[in-house]
Amino acid sequence: MYEIMKQMPTLEEDTSRPVYVQLSDHIKREIMRGELAEDAKLPSIRKLAEMLGISSTPVEWAYQQLIAEGYVYSQPRRGFRVRALMDGYGAIQLPMDNKLHHRIMPEQPQYPDTDQSAIRPIKNMAYDFHMSRNDFSLFPYAKWQQYTNRIWREEADELLFYGDPQGESGLRCEIANYLGQFRGVRCSPEQIVVGAEQHLLMTLLVQTLLKLKLGSVHSIGVERPGYRLLPGTFRHYGYQVVPIPLDEEGLDLTALERAGVKLVGVSPSHQFPMGMTMPIARRLALLDWAEREQAYIIEDDYDGEFRYHGRPIPSMQGLREDSRVIYMGGFSQVLAPALCVHYMVLPMELMCSFREMYRDVLFEQSTSRFIQRTLEVFMREGELGKHIRKMRNLYKRKHDLLVQSIRRHFGEQAEISGQNAGFHLVLRITSSQTATTLVRAAADKGVQVSSTEYLWGEAGSPKDSKKEFIIGFAGMDVAKIDMGIEALAKAWDCSRSY
Amino acid sequence: MYEIMKQMPTLEEDTSRPVYVQLSDHIKREIMRGELAEDAKLPSIRKLAEMLGISSTPVEWAYQQLIAEGYVYSQPRRGFRVRALMDGYGAIQLPMDNKLHHRIMPEQPQYPDTDQSAIRPIKNMAYDFHMSRNDFSLFPYAKWQQYTNRIWREEADELLFYGDPQGESGLRCEIANYLGQFRGVRCSPEQIVVGAEQHLLMTLLVQTLLKLKLGSVHSIGVERPGYRLLPGTFRHYGYQVVPIPLDEEGLDLTALERAGVKLVGVSPSHQFPMGMTMPIARRLALLDWAEREQAYIIEDDYDGEFRYHGRPIPSMQGLREDSRVIYMGGFSQVLAPALCVHYMVLPMELMCSFREMYRDVLFEQSTSRFIQRTLEVFMREGELGKHIRKMRNLYKRKHDLLVQSIRRHFGEQAEISGQNAGFHLVLRITSSQTATTLVRAAADKGVQVSSTEYLWGEAGSPKDSKKEFIIGFAGMDVAKIDMGIEALAKAWDCSRSY
Repeated sequence: MYEIMKQMPTLEEDTSRPVYVQLSDHIKREIMRGELAEDAKLPSIRKLAEMLGISSTPVEWAYQQLIAEGYVYSQPRRGFRVRALMDGYGAIQLPMDNKLHHRIMPEQPQYPDTDQSAIRPIKNMAYDFHMSRNDFSLFPYAKWQQYTNRIWREEADELLFYGDPQGESGLRCEIANYLGQFRGVRCSPEQIVVGAEQHLLMTLLVQTLLKLKLGSVHSIGVERPGYRLLPGTFRHYGYQVVPIPLDEEGLDLTALERAGVKLVGVSPSHQFPMGMTMPIARRLALLDWAEREQAYIIEDDYDGEFRYHGRPIPSMQGLREDSRVIYMGGFSQVLAPALCVHYMVLPMELMCSFREMYRDVLFEQSTSRFIQRTLEVFMREGELGKHIRKMRNLYKRKHDLLVQSIRRHFGEQAEISGQNAGFHLVLRITSSQTATTLVRAAADKGVQVSSTEYLWGEAGSPKDSKKEFIIGFAGMDVAKIDMGIEALAKAWDCSRSY
Repeated sequence: MYEIMKQMPTLEEDTSRPVYVQLSDHIKREIMRGELAEDAKLPSIRKLAEMLGISSTPVEWAYQQLIAEGYVYSQPRRGFRVRALMDGYGAIQLPMDNKLHHRIMPEQPQYPDTDQSAIRPIKNMAYDFHMSRNDFSLFPYAKWQQYTNRIWREEADELLFYGDPQGESGLRCEIANYLGQFRGVRCSPEQIVVGAEQHLLMTLLVQTLLKLKLGSVHSIGVERPGYRLLPGTFRHYGYQVVPIPLDEEGLDLTALERAGVKLVGVSPSHQFPMGMTMPIARRLALLDWAEREQAYIIEDDYDGEFRYHGRPIPSMQGLREDSRVIYMGGFSQVLAPALCVHYMVLPMELMCSFREMYRDVLFEQSTSRFIQRTLEVFMREGELGKHIRKMRNLYKRKHDLLVQSIRRHFGEQAEISGQNAGFHLVLRITSSQTATTLVRAAADKGVQVSSTEYLWGEAGSPKDSKKEFIIGFAGMDVAKIDMGIEALAKAWDCSRSY
């Protein structure tokens, strides 16, 4: 037996956890406990499979998962090795599953033209690769209506009045269970705040944080490029917004240290828009930063449920007990935006400020109690888990088709990053034309895509010939993906046949 | 014919407008045009009825309506006379329909105990006079579910995705029609913003106003006592909140002038909590103030649909074309809080700032599109109008019963103000005990009432022996009103038989 495996994993048969999950969890635990040292070599796939008396497939899957989460790296002729967990921020520069060729550029003064098509989808495009379109073909209409009607029939009198401003307690219990099971979040229902809209929840969060008086100047670090809602909302509250650059592993922690902020927003599972997963070492380092600085991390887990090869990456919030993480999620992607159910999980130590803020403002619950109750029953009956599994298969099919189509039609002319998860990937081409011109050229051929430019903030995106676009696939008709990508390649003169 | 009636009203027979409404509208128009001078005497009820060849009842109703809205006053032996419209703020001290014996007191330093029972109703009280409880016995369950099911069946695919952040345009059209017809509001659908919750809408409003940069210090005048959401929200945004005292006619405009603010919140139809209606002269003076100061008025029309004797008082927003009024309303009171539909109407000149703010923040619609569409159909089919008429009758019955019961059990020991409208009235007694003690004494006998104290802001309520309580009647069982008031009178040693 290899000395680096302190304890051979005991694989249970009579369990709902697949073998590869048991195996990767076992190795993770050994790494986290320090029982597997940096650079220690793991057995080869064939070898470990033999040792365990199982086929090599689950071992391969387990290793892929460990690589995706940043616990393990693999190099030609060196095999699978343990990555350093605490390494001085961002020092590891190893090949990753979803390597991203992204360079940090000096800030530029101009504000780029806002590409409005990126914000609202243009309707009636033949090929709509809008980033957050969902596929509702498998929406559980019958179940949803059945539960809704039952609730109207049996509980309407009680439900028509005001409910708990923090969200119905039954739904909060279900969310706590769900997050524990699906996202590795550790929380109790009393830490959960339900709201109809993300900006609203963020507003309640700002008001809660302002109660704390973190330093004299309020400032927040945000990913650059990144989701615009966070800087938009905080700036409106007089916060200074400090864009923090990304490297291949996500947020650059050296730059974060330099920024001197006490609050930072990240999307570690699948960075928006670039799509990298923050490896475990950097996650732990970021948690340490928050402890040391008495700062808070806002973890935006907008599509964490959707990983197409391997298991979802567990949330950062749950990596440590009582972590200084505010976790944000919702049901727009897993079910539908029109249900208007979002939530945030506050660290227990913020609950006092939250309640104090509530007493000042006296806001009411914003998500209809009928929808909250329906969702609660839907979750309790196990329907949400079933639905997510179905959607994951459907989206995986679209994802794989999209990647193949891009390879087929763009060949060497495009790089892809951020694949294997979520609802979009990033397509990078070299062109002397502006991103806006390229978006218009695509639209002329009936293809809706968005440039990443508007996500770079006031300083704008790097001014070079690399142009990046967000290609959403979740809402696309399976039959149209290949044609859409073909049309896109033609519109941009990138076709291989050209 | 009396010389003061320039033109005899032409009463139409073939119209949906009742005779008394035609008559009061005619007289209003003459007053507004200056054709009826201050103190001009109107014909007696009997005389005008004779002149018009109609019974005296519609004339009496018309005069009552003119008195309620502040166009006319009546004094023993002087008959009905025209009130001055522009009179130097608040100089008129005439008997009013809903006269309020409220004295302005110097500000006090202590912060009163927050009476939490006023904020959230305590459940399972035998007699729940909570101020905003609704009666759902007549809720149109069948129609609502029928429309909801039809919409899920026919439109779900389209509706599950994101909608218009400002609210579905179909619903906004219906709201514009409704407000024009029921509340005299003048607006187009594009001025309406729909949201799930009042605090959220107010937050969007603050962010819109901040775009305007009204003066260097942001400050807002609020009614004292008044609804807490407004000062709570604006204070969170760094606004200085200036409490403006009330007199018998509502907001004291001299104090408003002195405050030097550029923004003020009022509830002119039925001041919360005191219940007075702001007369037309003061409304016009307040609109003039806003014009002169380039300021804005936030009109909170929380229960404007519900007047039990005479017609609803039209909104202040619609008194002038392009008034500087932000009108706030919602469906919590007319339908149910759990639908989570509120709205605000912005002056057209604020729409630019609103859109600019939207581009920064990119909020999404917060009210479920399914509920928006259901409500739209419900309104278009005339069901809302029907429902409001039914509810008005039901609430009128409860209101009248409550007033009778208070007279019966409290006799001379209580004064009532703010009656004839909305969902509550204010009961005033003289007692050396604190309001909190009295609320507890009531609760011990199973009676839930709230003190007005927590609505006075930081400076607290006047420290004297007059104690005021909000008695909500809308959610009370008709059969329990009299017993509840009897129990209350006993709990406070106010019973006549005592």
